[in-house]
Amino acid sequence: MTIENISSTKSFAGWHKQYYHQSGVLNCQMRFAIYLPPQASERKVPVLYWLSGLTCTDENFMQKAGAMRIAAELGIAIVAPDTSPRGQGVADDPSESYDLGLGAGFYLNATQAPWREHYQMYDYVVQELPELIEQHFPVSNVRAIAGHSMGGHGALVAGLRNPERYQSISAFSPIVNPINCPWGHKAFLNYLGKNRDSWMQYDACELMKASSSDIPVLVDQGTSDNFLEEQLKPHALIEAAAINEYPLILRMQEGYDHSYYFIASFIEEHLRFHAKHMG
Amino acid sequence: MTIENISSTKSFAGWHKQYYHQSGVLNCQMRFAIYLPPQASERKVPVLYWLSGLTCTDENFMQKAGAMRIAAELGIAIVAPDTSPRGQGVADDPSESYDLGLGAGFYLNATQAPWREHYQMYDYVVQELPELIEQHFPVSNVRAIAGHSMGGHGALVAGLRNPERYQSISAFSPIVNPINCPWGHKAFLNYLGKNRDSWMQYDACELMKASSSDIPVLVDQGTSDNFLEEQLKPHALIEAAAINEYPLILRMQEGYDHSYYFIASFIEEHLRFHAKHMG
Repeated sequence: MTIENISSTKSFAGWHKQYYHQSGVLNCQMRFAIYLPPQASERKVPVLYWLSGLTCTDENFMQKAGAMRIAAELGIAIVAPDTSPRGQGVADDPSESYDLGLGAGFYLNATQAPWREHYQMYDYVVQELPELIEQHFPVSNVRAIAGHSMGGHGALVAGLRNPERYQSISAFSPIVNPINCPWGHKAFLNYLGKNRDSWMQYDACELMKASSSDIPVLVDQGTSDNFLEEQLKPHALIEAAAINEYPLILRMQEGYDHSYYFIASFIEEHLRFHAKHMG
Repeated sequence: MTIENISSTKSFAGWHKQYYHQSGVLNCQMRFAIYLPPQASERKVPVLYWLSGLTCTDENFMQKAGAMRIAAELGIAIVAPDTSPRGQGVADDPSESYDLGLGAGFYLNATQAPWREHYQMYDYVVQELPELIEQHFPVSNVRAIAGHSMGGHGALVAGLRNPERYQSISAFSPIVNPINCPWGHKAFLNYLGKNRDSWMQYDACELMKASSSDIPVLVDQGTSDNFLEEQLKPHALIEAAAINEYPLILRMQEGYDHSYYFIASFIEEHLRFHAKHMG
């Protein structure tokens, strides 16, 4: 597994870098970004994987969240993958909608044509990418995972299904119950087909109800988020946690919306939460 | 002078807002952004005017600099104007170059056709915009000014020519000596014509040599900036300051480039510098 550097920018005494690599799992070339804090020049540092939302690339979080300042203080690397496979030959929604196809991989392994050839983002994020990162960079195998919206869904699903791989999970404005919302219906029907049994393994509420682990989970949700009632349904996650007595911390943040201004306002608390659990 | 709100987003317990207004000075509709810290709901707060670089709009700094966190702590409003007049009928470089015309107003008052009808960014930034801001928002008339690259040039020029209007000036990677660099030559020749006497009033080095004030100036410049030698020439400002014993603080920052990652890395120190001088 080789990687090709395409940018290196000093930031908060560490380095923001972007790379291309050929993904075997996704069967296409992918770009990712990594922030290496200054501590990484002296020792292996833990890694926070950040999963972005619909339409994003590796760049949105790195440019807009203000996370590098705190990562540099705490000695945490951050890795931001893209949100779907990309490039020639990768299927897209014929209507070019923003919530299916390119930029909308939903962090699952597609089983339906034409998606299954490339849309295997679950395996990419959980397995292939960490393996690549731990091979090429001065990082430990101590990991946390976080994300926003579709990426919040991805972080919760990846973390709840693999508690042995992550120390902690956090999410901003996550799609917590995709089997019961329009974004989830559309994605799951297209990528996974009509059999709803296969949907359950990608639904954070279902996973939290059935979880036998207690990996720490922090969720922030703005009360002025346009997608709150129809798509995000945070109360479904609160109910799921209650059923299983899961130690969920879910905070409704008064007046905040779905944007990166919301993420920037609270990312410091998320990074400190992960740092505490990554040790 | 009326303003039309086009967005309001909660950020760090304050509000990021965007507005349209009809500029009499620029003779077109303009958009600007303002960040109001939480303190502005209780008292009038001082204002930092941020001037962006080539190709930017009101959005780049607000999205990428990570400044609102510190502004919220310090109780400072931030106002970010656009970088040129915009809209139908506003002249642009026929070759659509990035360094002349739209997005490249250079914070000066153009005297040459076809530019002079709209390109009056100096008067807009120094006079009309602050008047508008102080009429419509809970801000005091205590002001500071800062900027990046072309906007660093703009901040130095506006501040050095109007020390009675600002408490402090700061700049990242500023064009300090436009009469002696390609960006400056191209802009000044087009906007101001061939008479180099008219160029002097927009050259920070010339203004610093002649200044009789001692308004505090902080400049940060990355040593890995691609534009360092050809366009930015920080040593010319150091020499100008030495000639006039001007209290300039200019810091060469090892390894940093011209990007917003550089700005984000040091914006906290700039805001604390301005807060100290704005009292």
